[in-house]
Amino acid sequence: MVKLKCTVTYDGTNFSGYQIQPNKRTVQGTIETVLKKIHKGLEVKIVASGRTDAGVHAHEQVFHFVTKLNIPSANWKKALNSLLPDDIYIRKVEQVSADFHARYDVKRKEYRYKLLVDKEQDVFRRHYTYHVPMPLNKEAMEEAAKVFIGEHDFTSLCATNTSVVDKVRTIYKLSIIEDSNHEWVIQVIGSGFLYQMVRIIVGTLLDVGKGKLTPKDVTDIIEKKDRSYASQTAPPQGLTMWKVTY
Amino acid sequence: MVKLKCTVTYDGTNFSGYQIQPNKRTVQGTIETVLKKIHKGLEVKIVASGRTDAGVHAHEQVFHFVTKLNIPSANWKKALNSLLPDDIYIRKVEQVSADFHARYDVKRKEYRYKLLVDKEQDVFRRHYTYHVPMPLNKEAMEEAAKVFIGEHDFTSLCATNTSVVDKVRTIYKLSIIEDSNHEWVIQVIGSGFLYQMVRIIVGTLLDVGKGKLTPKDVTDIIEKKDRSYASQTAPPQGLTMWKVTY
Repeated sequence: MVKLKCTVTYDGTNFSGYQIQPNKRTVQGTIETVLKKIHKGLEVKIVASGRTDAGVHAHEQVFHFVTKLNIPSANWKKALNSLLPDDIYIRKVEQVSADFHARYDVKRKEYRYKLLVDKEQDVFRRHYTYHVPMPLNKEAMEEAAKVFIGEHDFTSLCATNTSVVDKVRTIYKLSIIEDSNHEWVIQVIGSGFLYQMVRIIVGTLLDVGKGKLTPKDVTDIIEKKDRSYASQTAPPQGLTMWKVTY
Repeated sequence: MVKLKCTVTYDGTNFSGYQIQPNKRTVQGTIETVLKKIHKGLEVKIVASGRTDAGVHAHEQVFHFVTKLNIPSANWKKALNSLLPDDIYIRKVEQVSADFHARYDVKRKEYRYKLLVDKEQDVFRRHYTYHVPMPLNKEAMEEAAKVFIGEHDFTSLCATNTSVVDKVRTIYKLSIIEDSNHEWVIQVIGSGFLYQMVRIIVGTLLDVGKGKLTPKDVTDIIEKKDRSYASQTAPPQGLTMWKVTY
């Protein structure tokens, strides 16, 4: 038996999220169907670093699986990509030791959220950015971003429909980069993230950018430990799982 | 009666091209449906600078129409965009004189064709680039590009299913720009273009880049005035109608 670690990129637009669901097109379901084909009908389960919601993308998501097929890693990449649809692409396949675990061994995760800050819409970026048609106060957003950095109980920034008990996480970096073409990238690196945490942080930063909240309000929101105090969850299409570090 | 000139951008991915066709989702059909709604059921025809094929995009396409509605131009933009789907966006609406014609008055057109020249695929650019997984000889392509510049009979570079008789056109500029992220942009500006001419030029340049043709062969291909001598038509998704000048 061999354990393989795969790095995969996908365009989340046409998926009902990462996790397998009956009668839905999901990333996990699509990959497991291909693996079943390669294993001549044998079911193969994959384990990812975490889920992504419908419409959320991955630049580099990681999953592992166990196989008894004796195929070199480079050929695995070719075999998978030749059977996968054009919105999923395997970047890398590496053999790992039997104790590697794509979820439990995560050291750090990076997400990026893209805003299109412009009066005008851009049809070509509608699936990959969140369009904000008004100007944003970047300085205020940067000040508020600092509040999230460090170890905090992120209960206020976590969707309520979750079974996770420990809501303490550490954010190492949270920065806002103004890119070319009216694009703002919110880059966040942390030890791990709660359900919809990045999108709720972004929604909260947006309210700061619009002047509806002050950076001081953000401190209060975290202290409340109550989801109802934070802002609306930002829409999925701006979010990309960028990198998983082990 | 007022004549309006509209500048429109669209993502061609989910359209069966620009021109209206029964039971197909087309750009023209979609815009005319919206105009009919605004005109309370009255049919309004639009006239564009030219057609684009299925999968081909527009950064700035231009069309005109005539209306008896008395609405300021700025409100026209809002009204149209609020009813159009999210893959079509009106950038500008201007009132023009009665003798303006979106097709006949074109002075110059610019198209851009994007290549993704990289061993690896990019799921996020699959609808907006043509993926070329091998290296290309850019110097040879640039030399070949020069051959197309100027006034020529472009019969060899035109799809055969066309009713156009005069196939003489002038190319003012044809350049290859190596962009960031493995993207090569082939920019072509001309007096006008024959059916699939840009995509056949790109296909021919690609064969030069791959070493299948020399720049000298390109001179011969033009002189033959026979489509069968030029290369395969490059796929639609790399092509964008960039700008129309009057």
